[in-house]
Amino acid sequence: LLEINIDSLKEKLKSFSNFGKTEGGGVSRLLFTKPEIEARNEFCRRMEKIGAEICTDDMGNIYATIKGNEDLPAIVTGSHCDSVVKGGNYDGILGVLAAMEVLETIVKEDIYHRHPITAIIWTNEEGVRFDPVMMGSGVVAGKFSREDILKAKDTEGITFEEALKNSGFLGQKENRLKPENTLANLELHIEQGPVLEMEEKSIGVLEGVIGMLNYAITLKGRAGHAGTVPMKYRKDAFLAASNALIYLHDKLKDFPEDLVFTNGQVFCHPNVNTVIADEFTFIVDARHKDPEVIKRLEEVIKNMPKEFNGCKLSYKKQWTRDTVKFNEKIVEIVENSTKALGYDYKKMYSGPGHDSQYIADIIPTSMIFVPSKDGDSHCEWEYTSLSDCHRGVNVLLHSILKLDNEDRL
Amino acid sequence: LLEINIDSLKEKLKSFSNFGKTEGGGVSRLLFTKPEIEARNEFCRRMEKIGAEICTDDMGNIYATIKGNEDLPAIVTGSHCDSVVKGGNYDGILGVLAAMEVLETIVKEDIYHRHPITAIIWTNEEGVRFDPVMMGSGVVAGKFSREDILKAKDTEGITFEEALKNSGFLGQKENRLKPENTLANLELHIEQGPVLEMEEKSIGVLEGVIGMLNYAITLKGRAGHAGTVPMKYRKDAFLAASNALIYLHDKLKDFPEDLVFTNGQVFCHPNVNTVIADEFTFIVDARHKDPEVIKRLEEVIKNMPKEFNGCKLSYKKQWTRDTVKFNEKIVEIVENSTKALGYDYKKMYSGPGHDSQYIADIIPTSMIFVPSKDGDSHCEWEYTSLSDCHRGVNVLLHSILKLDNEDRL
Repeated sequence: LLEINIDSLKEKLKSFSNFGKTEGGGVSRLLFTKPEIEARNEFCRRMEKIGAEICTDDMGNIYATIKGNEDLPAIVTGSHCDSVVKGGNYDGILGVLAAMEVLETIVKEDIYHRHPITAIIWTNEEGVRFDPVMMGSGVVAGKFSREDILKAKDTEGITFEEALKNSGFLGQKENRLKPENTLANLELHIEQGPVLEMEEKSIGVLEGVIGMLNYAITLKGRAGHAGTVPMKYRKDAFLAASNALIYLHDKLKDFPEDLVFTNGQVFCHPNVNTVIADEFTFIVDARHKDPEVIKRLEEVIKNMPKEFNGCKLSYKKQWTRDTVKFNEKIVEIVENSTKALGYDYKKMYSGPGHDSQYIADIIPTSMIFVPSKDGDSHCEWEYTSLSDCHRGVNVLLHSILKLDNEDRL
Repeated sequence: LLEINIDSLKEKLKSFSNFGKTEGGGVSRLLFTKPEIEARNEFCRRMEKIGAEICTDDMGNIYATIKGNEDLPAIVTGSHCDSVVKGGNYDGILGVLAAMEVLETIVKEDIYHRHPITAIIWTNEEGVRFDPVMMGSGVVAGKFSREDILKAKDTEGITFEEALKNSGFLGQKENRLKPENTLANLELHIEQGPVLEMEEKSIGVLEGVIGMLNYAITLKGRAGHAGTVPMKYRKDAFLAASNALIYLHDKLKDFPEDLVFTNGQVFCHPNVNTVIADEFTFIVDARHKDPEVIKRLEEVIKNMPKEFNGCKLSYKKQWTRDTVKFNEKIVEIVENSTKALGYDYKKMYSGPGHDSQYIADIIPTSMIFVPSKDGDSHCEWEYTSLSDCHRGVNVLLHSILKLDNEDRL
């Protein structure tokens, strides 16, 4: 079976890792900063070289399209090239390089294809320089109003509108990805979790992006000097938060095993060793593919005891996200391509959000995952082996070629 | 019974609150900064005015002495005039103003006294600008070597030695407080806790400063993305720390009710809501007057389970302090003075450390507490009512006059 050229992929990973390279071996490539613009320009230069047509839309999303042999809607693939501060060499950029590799392979090997095939760079997936995350795909999918988004400001007070204009990538609204001229969207991404590695699978065949909730739970106690306030008079917010946390974890026993429940962020006030904490907040980030499970968990949070250890409990919903189901036909095509290539795979849901989660709302979509070493991402040591990357791009290529046989999904 | 002049005390509190006044109504008066030096100069100016002899020692501690009618060792009283950043108008300074008030009253009322009486400002009690706390009294009591202390640096790299030289308060080593020419030391201070207020007492008669331990307890887990790592693979350091905290609190049931046990400071790493905490540390600050209780608690900490929720537990002793017992004769004299004045009082131990805790090692010592509103201190809203301050200074005056009858303690 045809495989993409591993050396070509290796060269791409190496070349693009120079855009925003950090001392620690990762990248800092924030939206529309010099290194991010360099990466965009390099993408355009290479895509033009193989004869692709380049255009950008009014969000700065870039589309590089090679024509098909018939007048049909396009098959699109891509990801983002912005990163977090001191991020890694795979998150986002791998999906862009994979798209380029697929287009280059099809052109070089002169593979017959009926549909146009488009490689995409989505604008501001990470949401680090401008809030919110997944801005480019979000506007295209109708999740955000462009007018609101234009006003977003970075920490230096520069608006997204100014940054977009100055970037040179501001294009026309009519260039936006549209359902009427798009057959399918397929994105390759790193897993950003340990499941594939732990289960020794090379490929994740994505069925969707799981729903989530994010709540802040706060316990309010009373401050006092560590050396003086008798225990019986105390309202210790940290002790109360610990009991509230354990209360929630006990409740998890009634929930499906694949619910993930994380409390990675805490705020302790005043956080001084000689002062009893008068306020302690922890974040609940919970995710599950079944919206009913998320709803049930919300009920548990809302029905928590109003008091722990004399401290008043309050909760604040920060956001929720509904589960997104990917197109079953595409999932089946990806699964079959993976099988045909002989790779071990796992059908799974994504925990993190991705551009494809928004695009799935308007265009038949799925995703492919490759393993993340130790599950680490958003860090300089983020790593996926070259052979895993290679397998991922091979699955992407064959899935796109199989999708090319379809007229409707 | 003779009382000190409440208007004079009120004026002092108001005048000295101007040295380092903050917008929030408190003071920022760090050691040897302009406002702290102004407070010292004002102390000297006022004490010279009543005929006191001023000298400083090689730590910048200031002694203002009015002669007695006999050639006897001195009775000393005082506290510190430095504050924390955005501290209050009572912590430390009240003890200095009280000492001044006592000397002024004795001089103005021409009260016969056999012993010299000395008002003292101790250098760097708070330890905010230079570490450690209670530096001036600590060197005098032989707790620290002066040579080591001189090397202490503030955040701008200025050494204590330089700051001391530039302050104008560097004096001779032979001026240090010495057991051979000192009969007794008595310090008035705010409680910095809520006990007196809660029990509706005006005066705390101090029997000592309770011993304490300070340990850091750390749980090491494993990081991972909130959306991907299945619960069964997790090592969540925050959850583990919560269980460890509750384990410790359960053990407290076997300890005396007057053990205080505080966990006011936590460190969560990386403290990001989408990342499982891989390290969580909390501080244990525990205090009790009986050294055996502190020792027993240390054993509990050392014998904690080595693991909670799959996370390795480790502990680190940061420091311990032995219980200091004050001189029983002085405690009795303070109690009798308080009774004679008709004030409600409580015999108690101090939780926080004070200069007198070090001085107690070389000179017969005790302390007097006045209530802190809501137990708050080290904050701009720290408050003790003028009438409580007045009562405290009256007890100090009468206790010193009673001590004056003694030849040996």
